Amino acid sequence: MSKGVTPQSQDYPRWYTDVVQKAELADYSPVKGCMVIRPYGYAIWERLQETLDTMFKETGHVNAYFPMFIPQHFMEKEAEHVEGFAPETAVVTHGGGKKLDEPLVVRPTSETIIWSMYKNWIGSYRDLPLLINQWANVVRWEMRTRLFLRTTEFLWQEGHTAHATPEEAEEETRKMLEVYQTMAEDFMALPVIPGVKSEREKFAGALHTYSIEAMMGDKKALQAGTSHNLGQNFAKAFDVQFQNENNELEYVYATSWGVSTRLVGALIMAHGDDQGLVLPPKLAPYQVVIVPIWRNDDQKSQVMEAVDTVSKSLKEQDIRVHVDDRVTQTPGFKFNDWEMKGVPLRIEVGPRDVENDQMVLVRRLTGEKSSLPLQSSAADIRNMLDEIQQTMYDHALNFRTMNTLQTTSYEEMKEYIKSDSGFVLAPWSGADETEDTIKEETKATLRCIPFDAPEISDAHKDIVTGKPAKHWAVFSKAY
Amino acid sequence: MSKGVTPQSQDYPRWYTDVVQKAELADYSPVKGCMVIRPYGYAIWERLQETLDTMFKETGHVNAYFPMFIPQHFMEKEAEHVEGFAPETAVVTHGGGKKLDEPLVVRPTSETIIWSMYKNWIGSYRDLPLLINQWANVVRWEMRTRLFLRTTEFLWQEGHTAHATPEEAEEETRKMLEVYQTMAEDFMALPVIPGVKSEREKFAGALHTYSIEAMMGDKKALQAGTSHNLGQNFAKAFDVQFQNENNELEYVYATSWGVSTRLVGALIMAHGDDQGLVLPPKLAPYQVVIVPIWRNDDQKSQVMEAVDTVSKSLKEQDIRVHVDDRVTQTPGFKFNDWEMKGVPLRIEVGPRDVENDQMVLVRRLTGEKSSLPLQSSAADIRNMLDEIQQTMYDHALNFRTMNTLQTTSYEEMKEYIKSDSGFVLAPWSGADETEDTIKEETKATLRCIPFDAPEISDAHKDIVTGKPAKHWAVFSKAY
Repeated sequence: MSKGVTPQSQDYPRWYTDVVQKAELADYSPVKGCMVIRPYGYAIWERLQETLDTMFKETGHVNAYFPMFIPQHFMEKEAEHVEGFAPETAVVTHGGGKKLDEPLVVRPTSETIIWSMYKNWIGSYRDLPLLINQWANVVRWEMRTRLFLRTTEFLWQEGHTAHATPEEAEEETRKMLEVYQTMAEDFMALPVIPGVKSEREKFAGALHTYSIEAMMGDKKALQAGTSHNLGQNFAKAFDVQFQNENNELEYVYATSWGVSTRLVGALIMAHGDDQGLVLPPKLAPYQVVIVPIWRNDDQKSQVMEAVDTVSKSLKEQDIRVHVDDRVTQTPGFKFNDWEMKGVPLRIEVGPRDVENDQMVLVRRLTGEKSSLPLQSSAADIRNMLDEIQQTMYDHALNFRTMNTLQTTSYEEMKEYIKSDSGFVLAPWSGADETEDTIKEETKATLRCIPFDAPEISDAHKDIVTGKPAKHWAVFSKAY
Repeated sequence: MSKGVTPQSQDYPRWYTDVVQKAELADYSPVKGCMVIRPYGYAIWERLQETLDTMFKETGHVNAYFPMFIPQHFMEKEAEHVEGFAPETAVVTHGGGKKLDEPLVVRPTSETIIWSMYKNWIGSYRDLPLLINQWANVVRWEMRTRLFLRTTEFLWQEGHTAHATPEEAEEETRKMLEVYQTMAEDFMALPVIPGVKSEREKFAGALHTYSIEAMMGDKKALQAGTSHNLGQNFAKAFDVQFQNENNELEYVYATSWGVSTRLVGALIMAHGDDQGLVLPPKLAPYQVVIVPIWRNDDQKSQVMEAVDTVSKSLKEQDIRVHVDDRVTQTPGFKFNDWEMKGVPLRIEVGPRDVENDQMVLVRRLTGEKSSLPLQSSAADIRNMLDEIQQTMYDHALNFRTMNTLQTTSYEEMKEYIKSDSGFVLAPWSGADETEDTIKEETKATLRCIPFDAPEISDAHKDIVTGKPAKHWAVFSKAY
C-alpha cells in the first residue's frame, strides 16, 4: 500500500481525496470551494477535451466563446431557469472601481447569454441548424465541495444548438448523449446507463433531460454527462423566431449538453485502487513509463542506449511514453510514484535485462509482470495497452452488473440502498412522491429511466405507492 | 469592393470593425465591453492556441488551471501590482445569495493566486524549475473597448515559471519572447521588433518586461506579446523560499509571459485589405475553398466528381480544404464571402474546366488567377500556400521598413508621428520625462528598446532633452 493513501475499505471519501492529492491531480485553493487543477490532472482533462472536441467536430459542431458575465435580468427571463440557478450564482457588483448599474452574474451555464445572441444571428430556416459548442469555466456557489466532483468554479464544455423542427432538436439531444456514451465507454472504459431524467431531476428550463449514469468504486452513481431538449423555452424567453420554409414565423427549437472536469473524478473513482489511480490507456497522459536501472556509469550508458531505442520506437508509433531518468530518486520510489499516478504500463530495464536482451513489463491494473525482447515492435506494446483498456471496461461492467438489484420489493430496495450495495432497478409510477419518499428514507435519487429498461407490464406496481407503474427506473445514492 | 466594408483610406477604425463583423469573427455582446467570439474568429484562435501550445510543450512547459477568483487582499501583497491592476478589476461581492466576508477579484492576471500555491509546492531546488502555463479568461475593466484589441473579458495564456537562479529566470524570459517571435513571424507572417520596455511601460510588478512590437496597416504599433522577469518580487510577497544546493533558504525567481485574443486583431490589421480579411495559410481555418460551378444536374455530377477528387487529395496531405456546395448561394456570392473571410486560395471548378481537365486557382493576397490540371498533386497546392505565406511576411516587413524613420531631430520625429507615418527610432536618455513629453505632444509611446538597435555613441543626445542618450528606442502611436 502506498504511503499515505487511506484504504478504500476504511474510508472511501478519504481514499479519494488522498489519491487526488498524492497523484498531484488537484489541490485546494485559498478561495473557498475553488480548486487548482495541477499539471498531471490537467493533462488528463486535456486528453478528455481533445477526444470530445474531435467527436464534436466530426458531428458538425464548431466552437465559439461567449462572455462569462450575464446581465442579471437575463437570468430571470426563463422562469424555471432562474429558480434553478439564481440561488447558486456569484455576482459582480463593482467594476473599474465603481458600483455597476446592473449586477452581472458569473455564468452558471450560458443558455441566456447565448440565446440573446442567437436572436441576432437567426432570421430564416437557412440559418439553421446552428451547432455551437463552448469550452469555458462556470461558477455555481456550492456549500459542500469536493475536488473535481463539486467545486464552485469548474471547467466544462457546453453545446448550444438551434433547430428548425422539434424532431431535429430531439435527434440532436440523443445524438450528443451517444457521443458522451462513446466517450465514457470507449475512452474512459466506463460503462454507463443512458436514460431519461425525471421531472424532479431534469435541467432547469428543459423539456426533458437525458443523462449517462456510471457506477463508482463505492457503488454510488455519478452523472457523467447530460443532454437537454430545451424545446422553445429559451427561444420564447429571448424572442428568437425564424422564417420557416412556408414563410411563417416560428420559435426556434433548442438543445444544450455538457460534461465537466467531474469526469476526472469519475475516472479516479471508477478504476482507482489502494495503490492510487488506474488510468485507461486511451486517456493516460503517459501510457508507458520506462524506468532505467543502473548502479554505475558503465551500466548507465548501456541501459540508456537500450531505453532510448525502445522509447524512440514507441514514440514513432504515437504511444505516449515517458522515460523517468531522475537521478534524485530510487527505482523503488519511481515504481510507487507511477503506480500512484496510474500509468497503465511500466517498463523496467536494468543491466541484466540488457544482457538478456529483454525488458520487464508491469501492468498497473493487475500488477502482472512479463518480459519482451528489447527489439519487440511497438505493436506488441500497443496490443497490450488495447487489452488493458478492454479489461478495464469489462471489470467495470462486471462490477456494475454484480452490484445492481432488480426488485419489486421496497423493503429489499431499502435494505440494498442502506447497505450501500449498489443500483436498484425498480418499477415507478412517474410520480414525484415516490422519489420524495425514497430520498427521505434512503438518500437515493432516481438516476434515470434507462433507454433499454425491461418492459413494464400492467402487473407492475410503483415500488413505494403501489399505484400502476409506468417505467423501470434506476435509483441510487449519487455524487 | 465588398458591400459594406468602409475603405481603409477613408476610415481605418471603421474598416477594422466592418471586417470583424462582416467576416463573422466577433460580435458585440449585451454586456458592456465584452465580446462574443464567433465560430470563424474562434477557429483562428484555435489555430493560434494549437501552435503556441505545441511550442510551449516542446520547451518543457505543462498546462494547469488556477481559480479565476482571487481574494482581494492577495492583490495588495505586491505594491506595484496592486497599483497597476486594482483600478481595472471586476469584483464579486455576493455568492450563493449572501454577501461575502471578503470580496473576490476576477483575475486580471494570475501571479498572486499562482504564487500563493507555489508556496505549497516548492520546498527545495529539486522542485525547480516549475514551468506552468494556463489558458484562461481574464477581466480588465476597460472604458474604451474594441473587438479583439481591448475588451473587458478576453482569452489568453499566461505562463508562470519558478527558478532557482536569476540567470535561469532571465533565460526563460528571453526564451519565451523568442517563442512569441517565432509565432508572429513564422505563423502570423508578421515581422516584429523584440526589445525591452521602459520603466513606464513595464508590467506592474516586474523587474523588466520584454515585448514584441508589430506594425499594423495604419502604421501604428501593436504589442503582440510580453514576457516579464519578475525577479523575487512575487516570491517575497507570498514568502516562497526554497532550500538551495548549499542548504540555504532563498527566495524563488519568477517569470510570467502572455499573449491574448488580441493576436486575432493583429492578424486582421497587419494583412487585411478593402476586400476584407487576408489570412496567412498557416493559421487559416480553411487554407483552400473549392467553389463548384454548375447550371444543371448533369454538370453538377461531373463537377462534383472532380471536386471530390481534388478535395480528397488535399485532405490526405493535411491541407485544410472546404467545399462550398451551398445551393442557396451563387458562385459570385461565395467568391465575395470567402474573400471577406480571407481564405488564402480559392479553387473554382466548372463544367468547362472539367472538359479541359483543369481547375482555376485564385490567390486572395494578389487576386492573381492561374490554372492547374485537375490531377495536380497536393504538393503543388502546398507550395503555392508556402509561397503565399512567405510573400505575406515579405510584404509586411517591407511595409514596416518603408514606414520607419531613424532620426535625431525631434521636429522631424513630431512631424512623422503626427502625420501617422509610422515608427520612429530615436536616441533616448532613459528618463521618464522624454516619454512624458513625447506622449503629451504626439500621443506616441516608447514601444521598446530593440535588442538589435544600432549602437549608441557619446555623440547621441536624447531626442527631447538633449541629455546623453543611452539607447535607440522605438516610438509610435499604439493600440
